[in-house]
Amino acid sequence: MQPFELPLTAAADAIRARQLSPVELVDSVLDRIEKVEPHLQAYVAVTAEQARREAREAADEVAGGRLRSPLHGIPMGLKDLINVAGAATSASSRVRTGHRAEADSTVAARLSAAGAVLLGKTHTHEFAYGLTTPQTNNAWNPDRIAGGSSGGSAVAVAAGAATFSLGTDTGGSIRVPAALNGVVGLKPTYGLVPRPGITSLSWSLDHVGPITRTVEDAALVLSVLAGHDPRDPASLVVPPADYRPDAGADLAGLRVGVPRNYYFDHVDAEVEAAVRHAIDQLQALGAQLVDVEIPMTRYIKATQWGLMVPEATAYHEQTLRTVPELYQADVRILLEAGQLMPAGDYLHAQRSRTLMRQAWAGLLDEVDVIAAPTVPATAVAAGEEVITWPDGTVESASDAYVRLSAPANITGLPSLSVPVGFDAAGLPVGMQLLGRPLGESTLLRVGHAYEQTQPARELAPVA
Amino acid sequence: MQPFELPLTAAADAIRARQLSPVELVDSVLDRIEKVEPHLQAYVAVTAEQARREAREAADEVAGGRLRSPLHGIPMGLKDLINVAGAATSASSRVRTGHRAEADSTVAARLSAAGAVLLGKTHTHEFAYGLTTPQTNNAWNPDRIAGGSSGGSAVAVAAGAATFSLGTDTGGSIRVPAALNGVVGLKPTYGLVPRPGITSLSWSLDHVGPITRTVEDAALVLSVLAGHDPRDPASLVVPPADYRPDAGADLAGLRVGVPRNYYFDHVDAEVEAAVRHAIDQLQALGAQLVDVEIPMTRYIKATQWGLMVPEATAYHEQTLRTVPELYQADVRILLEAGQLMPAGDYLHAQRSRTLMRQAWAGLLDEVDVIAAPTVPATAVAAGEEVITWPDGTVESASDAYVRLSAPANITGLPSLSVPVGFDAAGLPVGMQLLGRPLGESTLLRVGHAYEQTQPARELAPVA
Repeated sequence: MQPFELPLTAAADAIRARQLSPVELVDSVLDRIEKVEPHLQAYVAVTAEQARREAREAADEVAGGRLRSPLHGIPMGLKDLINVAGAATSASSRVRTGHRAEADSTVAARLSAAGAVLLGKTHTHEFAYGLTTPQTNNAWNPDRIAGGSSGGSAVAVAAGAATFSLGTDTGGSIRVPAALNGVVGLKPTYGLVPRPGITSLSWSLDHVGPITRTVEDAALVLSVLAGHDPRDPASLVVPPADYRPDAGADLAGLRVGVPRNYYFDHVDAEVEAAVRHAIDQLQALGAQLVDVEIPMTRYIKATQWGLMVPEATAYHEQTLRTVPELYQADVRILLEAGQLMPAGDYLHAQRSRTLMRQAWAGLLDEVDVIAAPTVPATAVAAGEEVITWPDGTVESASDAYVRLSAPANITGLPSLSVPVGFDAAGLPVGMQLLGRPLGESTLLRVGHAYEQTQPARELAPVA
Repeated sequence: MQPFELPLTAAADAIRARQLSPVELVDSVLDRIEKVEPHLQAYVAVTAEQARREAREAADEVAGGRLRSPLHGIPMGLKDLINVAGAATSASSRVRTGHRAEADSTVAARLSAAGAVLLGKTHTHEFAYGLTTPQTNNAWNPDRIAGGSSGGSAVAVAAGAATFSLGTDTGGSIRVPAALNGVVGLKPTYGLVPRPGITSLSWSLDHVGPITRTVEDAALVLSVLAGHDPRDPASLVVPPADYRPDAGADLAGLRVGVPRNYYFDHVDAEVEAAVRHAIDQLQALGAQLVDVEIPMTRYIKATQWGLMVPEATAYHEQTLRTVPELYQADVRILLEAGQLMPAGDYLHAQRSRTLMRQAWAGLLDEVDVIAAPTVPATAVAAGEEVITWPDGTVESASDAYVRLSAPANITGLPSLSVPVGFDAAGLPVGMQLLGRPLGESTLLRVGHAYEQTQPARELAPVA
């Protein structure tokens, strides 16, 4: 096995045991990038020289007996909405031509202090406002969409072109591409990971979190990211925590809610089968399955869009006025639509969110986690705009991908997407675990227990 | 001295000492109502029979050795936005004809459980959306406005037609009429007193609180009102507290911020002189005066209106569509204006509020309280729509009255208005004390210390 193939946890163990040097690891991943990037286009920019320099510094520290954290010397990609001092934050948009971030985002600073090595910035759907990331190809089939908006981050991790990455998630943008590329994606509780220095899509729905090969890897990254920053008005004051799950895989006593409505409606049969099979595994591990009713489902889409559309437009107010032609048409149309939205509709969405949060809190009194598909279909072909369901219903692919992930954005509840197999076309399927506010440890424990029942995950065999 | 003349604290002491029966007290206040109501029109409805029955029950409990709280047997008026089971909540509006509340509001239930006796419901500016309360006359001069929107509540307390009352405050609606009628008004910290069962004007700015004769009285009422109610999404989880201030009047060590900008701009000379004189009293009691700069003042008005206008419109959406002709013209125009407001403007106001809260938090790191005028002018004549300042600036009376009180609504900070004398026309002047979140005890201590330097407050000598 080559270093680029190692999950974060294994790489960290090898670095700590001095069986692997950060220089070897980073070189291996940079070589892999060189090989797979022509097929994937996961990166906006790869900063190989800077990465090699940081790797040597990390190696020197190891030699000096200093390990900053389990992320010490681990190469990562950051979605190109995340500021890194001195680098452009392109947001994969022509609007940002000539941009240069003056300071690190909070998360970049924390990762840097923890010893992680930046490989480069990964592609996002323009300004995170879409579910495909058109510049990037799916890691398992280049004719399929990467998913979005954190498409580059998910594809890089799936292909071994980053040991881990960060994405952002406003309606599913970490979990959707994670599911479509067969990797783990964690959208933490709203406010757990601070957002200063990250380009906003919709501040009341925006989250940042890890994309990794395994659940344990996600826990390691979250342990570095979590914690209060007063510059983010939504940031929660929480004590530092080690999120790494216990080795045990016993889920006795755990109540897993299985939705009887919404989450299995208009879901591809192969996706449903894979997710239900994974839920059976949870039961086999001792969990008790509980039939649950998802509340207020007819308001989910209106609430998500009612919050997101005007907030996104407010963020882009200036540039939409001065350089509208620099936006891609799909994003510009959404932003312009937001200018026409009355305050009353936004208010209704805010009030609906409050009620939805209360209703979900009641639901999560009954069960510890909820298990469901992350997305209702595997990756569609690039350019395929709609999905036609067996009953004849036609749904835009974007609406379909956001449909099952949006509730965790509206409610702020943590949600972890875990790969649970492949469809007949060889495309990955994801299962989503939703938990209580600040219930990340439970989600990670359940996801990790599930993973231990499965063979080790393989990288996408690009080209 | 007749019972109706007693402040709450004195009446409660007399009841506890069995020198006064709740029946005598309530009868005395009801007689006073009969005498002064023709001049004041403070009440929408007086429920004398019900009040006498509750007074007898309270008296029986006293005879049986049971005192529910310091409010036991104390007669009160409730602003007619506050639901009382079985009674109409008129909101002083024709829109509410035939209304009947099914259950007590949280505050009515808490006051009832504490033994307070309801005299009746007091006038509000229609749906609390205005600063005059046109049905009601000022307690000190019937040709002057009562102020609003809790005009009836303030006038009743000022005239001895209620021992205490409750008002609501979205932009100053407790403090403005309290100041204009020479009584004490407390707008607590946002979220400290729950609002279920109270007609909303603008839920992100709405507060409910006491109007009383003395600061100590306000503390007694707040002790009954405060505390979590999960049915109010904004309700804070706070432990029960006794807010009654200590007897001591020593303010040594207290830092009192005196604004160098905003709060003394466009303020009537007599109002300024009275407030500065009161601030000198605080210094004489040992407080250290600190010159402070009020932040972001140019955004106060836009933020207040930007939040209030669309929230008010959302609340009235149905009736504005079906029965617009039942609203008074001033209120209907404001509600209709809200229908035209874009979501982006509301978003800007929300973001501005967040920044303003942070800036005020910094200010209140430097000082313990801020002392300022409550309103820039005493009560204008009924029908007088504008105030012309010496520099020739013309300001609508409503804008002037809301100008100095709105910051505490935007920031959610507690604010206590205390009478500090009269102008040459014999109209009362109010001083406002603003404090830190949940800093009610400090405000009450300062206000109480100030009051102890003054002669006992007299009732308005109506007609």
